[in-house]
Amino acid sequence: MSTVVGHDPRTGQPVGGGVPHTSPADLDQIVAAATAAAPRLAALGPVDRARLLTGLADALDVAGEDLVPLAMAETGLGRPRLVGEVARTSFQLRLMATAVLEGSLVEAVLDSADPTAAPPRPDLRRMLVPIGPVLVFSASNFPFAFSTLGGDTASALAAGCPVVVKAHEGHPELTARCTALARDVVSDLGLPSGTFDAVYGVESGPAAVQHPGIRACGFTGSARGGRALFDLANQRPDPIPFYGELGSINPTVVTPAAIAARGEEIAAGYVGSFTLGNGQFCTKPGLLFLPAGHGLDGRLRELVGEVESAPMLTERVRAAFDTGVGSLADRPSVRVIAAPEASPGRPGQWAAPSLLATSAAQWSSDVEALSQECFGPVSLVVEYESPGELVAALSLLEGSLTATVHAEPVDGLPVADLLAVLDRKVGRVIWNGWPTGVAVAWAMQHGGPHPVTTNALHTSVGVTATRRWLRPVTYQSVPDALLPPALREGNPLGIPRRVDGVLVLP
Amino acid sequence: MSTVVGHDPRTGQPVGGGVPHTSPADLDQIVAAATAAAPRLAALGPVDRARLLTGLADALDVAGEDLVPLAMAETGLGRPRLVGEVARTSFQLRLMATAVLEGSLVEAVLDSADPTAAPPRPDLRRMLVPIGPVLVFSASNFPFAFSTLGGDTASALAAGCPVVVKAHEGHPELTARCTALARDVVSDLGLPSGTFDAVYGVESGPAAVQHPGIRACGFTGSARGGRALFDLANQRPDPIPFYGELGSINPTVVTPAAIAARGEEIAAGYVGSFTLGNGQFCTKPGLLFLPAGHGLDGRLRELVGEVESAPMLTERVRAAFDTGVGSLADRPSVRVIAAPEASPGRPGQWAAPSLLATSAAQWSSDVEALSQECFGPVSLVVEYESPGELVAALSLLEGSLTATVHAEPVDGLPVADLLAVLDRKVGRVIWNGWPTGVAVAWAMQHGGPHPVTTNALHTSVGVTATRRWLRPVTYQSVPDALLPPALREGNPLGIPRRVDGVLVLP
Repeated sequence: MSTVVGHDPRTGQPVGGGVPHTSPADLDQIVAAATAAAPRLAALGPVDRARLLTGLADALDVAGEDLVPLAMAETGLGRPRLVGEVARTSFQLRLMATAVLEGSLVEAVLDSADPTAAPPRPDLRRMLVPIGPVLVFSASNFPFAFSTLGGDTASALAAGCPVVVKAHEGHPELTARCTALARDVVSDLGLPSGTFDAVYGVESGPAAVQHPGIRACGFTGSARGGRALFDLANQRPDPIPFYGELGSINPTVVTPAAIAARGEEIAAGYVGSFTLGNGQFCTKPGLLFLPAGHGLDGRLRELVGEVESAPMLTERVRAAFDTGVGSLADRPSVRVIAAPEASPGRPGQWAAPSLLATSAAQWSSDVEALSQECFGPVSLVVEYESPGELVAALSLLEGSLTATVHAEPVDGLPVADLLAVLDRKVGRVIWNGWPTGVAVAWAMQHGGPHPVTTNALHTSVGVTATRRWLRPVTYQSVPDALLPPALREGNPLGIPRRVDGVLVLP
Repeated sequence: MSTVVGHDPRTGQPVGGGVPHTSPADLDQIVAAATAAAPRLAALGPVDRARLLTGLADALDVAGEDLVPLAMAETGLGRPRLVGEVARTSFQLRLMATAVLEGSLVEAVLDSADPTAAPPRPDLRRMLVPIGPVLVFSASNFPFAFSTLGGDTASALAAGCPVVVKAHEGHPELTARCTALARDVVSDLGLPSGTFDAVYGVESGPAAVQHPGIRACGFTGSARGGRALFDLANQRPDPIPFYGELGSINPTVVTPAAIAARGEEIAAGYVGSFTLGNGQFCTKPGLLFLPAGHGLDGRLRELVGEVESAPMLTERVRAAFDTGVGSLADRPSVRVIAAPEASPGRPGQWAAPSLLATSAAQWSSDVEALSQECFGPVSLVVEYESPGELVAALSLLEGSLTATVHAEPVDGLPVADLLAVLDRKVGRVIWNGWPTGVAVAWAMQHGGPHPVTTNALHTSVGVTATRRWLRPVTYQSVPDALLPPALREGNPLGIPRRVDGVLVLP
């Protein structure tokens, strides 16, 4: 039987003995178990659902010490980053538990009968219910927070849906360990074993997307892979929602006033942000719009030179990085601000940061090539001559996860106009900050217009990520005892509800 | 230039001189105007947005007297029904205006900075913003309520999106009249003319779905047409959401206790519901599960015989009805309870109701053929021998818009089990009522799992239909003066908001 084996990006050596590929028969069995678990999970009250989420958070925190070294070996990411990621992942599970208990996620609405409406209205009560088994593709670059027990899983379980994780080929052993941990929690709570499981092997991804029992998919990964799976989801006889988060260029704009006030600080923030995690974040600032004559070349070169070389996640990622940087550098009028020295004899996956630059005029005339996301520690400075040229250039941008503006309280640039151009194109607008670092919160939006997601109406981070896994059902004139508790007359769950058009707090 | 000409289903004669097909160049111009109008509409405050909706409602009410005869001529539907439909349509526009003023639709969320969160949280403020120009396909069977100024249009305008209506070939003159009326309202309010327009001709539908400027589509119509357009929307380089509402079989279950208590009343309700509007509703009860030995054949035959023959919407609809009834009647073990007399010399589009019956055992063994929706005045009675046989049969059903249960307060059947089977499959569960008659309300759900919609997460009727046309944007650390009013510190719009995880009423 073939296995999925991870490799240590620091050494190129295999990690562990590998995890067996999931066979089609095993996939059937796993999805059947999820399908069987679905009604039981859907019927679970908020307290029990929250207990599952906090149980997973507790177990993850306890196991973190053991899991981090394995994650380091399979991903090459550093210890502090991975320790932080475990904390983020358990924080996320706990925040979801809080939200489940608060109760707004089910969007309970009660309309009493109204014979004067056109047409007359019977007693109607509406809530959101779980959509059924959810397939979660784990991501290479966040082995915890966007993987086995990450945001898609946390939000799907919060919604009351069983989860089947498609393990990433980059960290199979870690996936197996996290899955075993989760299945123990599920079992300890007396929940059906189909509540959570994982599948392994490249071919199990498309097979699972097309499996009749899967009701929705969450995906974080490449544009090409995401689009192919999106197409499969839509080509099913019964199309299912496919939420793909596919990477982003994340334009950042700096005004002349901001350069004058804190140019050095901005340079340091920029280099820190585009090289964070070796540039392997979907929120990496890939484009920095600077006023021509900014005078920061020297400082930027210095800062980039101080960044230590680090291994990239996989050989494929490293190869794509080399190709991407090469394609950018080869475009006409692109100059190099900083480029790595010749390789210091490290194995193939190590990469050092590069910084390139071009003019806004050149960028605008070659926008398709010069706004391709290149995953890894590289970014492109775009130098604009005038506010008009800047706004014209920004209007050429496609969708991104984020857009950032660095400006001053009193600024020579029409900052409101900049925001008006940018907020049509992105899911998050950042003021005087950096796009890396995605907080887990009620108010987070991690998503955006094409090409960064396959569905701009939703988020993959934060509490409202649950909305992707819920569908509405209305109960018309159904006797109180037969209604779900969220909709009963006495509000036994004590949750916020809309009653006859008015929000009522418990 | 070719034109779209409606025909009077009562006589077969053309109605009016026809409306010119929209050329590709005109489509470009109309979508360009909508695109240009989008930022202006998005920036409109709730008061002005509500004014547009109530302005349309007022204008429609005033024009109703003139429009109803035209609608009668183009659809063959009766005056009382159409007068009621105008009232429903303006009620819907006014309800949306109320919701816009209430303000919850933008889902404003404010999270203040929290350095203790993992990762630390900056100031985050999230709201829903309009997605951009929306394409609305109008439906043949609701020339007002699901057409030019119907639910999709009302919800898209409430969301702040410009609307392009694809006129239905069944009522082009009415569409042109309603469009002119709407464009006058838009102009009187000083709004951009791209706010609202319509396109005509079969080929303008797919062309508009594929137009780069269109950002989402609403569709009510046939499964085949809806699926083809859904595929086009997803195959775009930049896929867009396509919300298709495609028709439904709407199972209705009657327990022996309900038959004993009010069999006659149920028979009358059933015949009234499946023949309402000549059976041309997507909520028509297409399947009625009755206990074997119900003894209602004679009464049902009598009731069906009393229903007057009526014209169907179009020749195609009539032809599909004949084929559909024929296919059902030809299946093994299907018997006829009531069938129309030989045609009384009416033109081709007139149809009289039919009622067929079969056993639950037979239905279960031939479920694919016997659960096909047949648009028009026909329904199938399915007779079950035992509660177990009933539950087994219901579990074979695909998705529907609605499921209905007729039962008694103390009932021999495991009614909770019936509901548990049914509510997984539908968007609305009805108790002791009939599925036709879809109230416009906050708590309405008009949608459901495959095959009845292309997206079970949303509704096409009721206030929450707006959610289809909105996408989230988060503002991180943005100064108060640059924030949209819904997110400013002082809550200048006075709307409900979630602040640091807690719902706060104004």
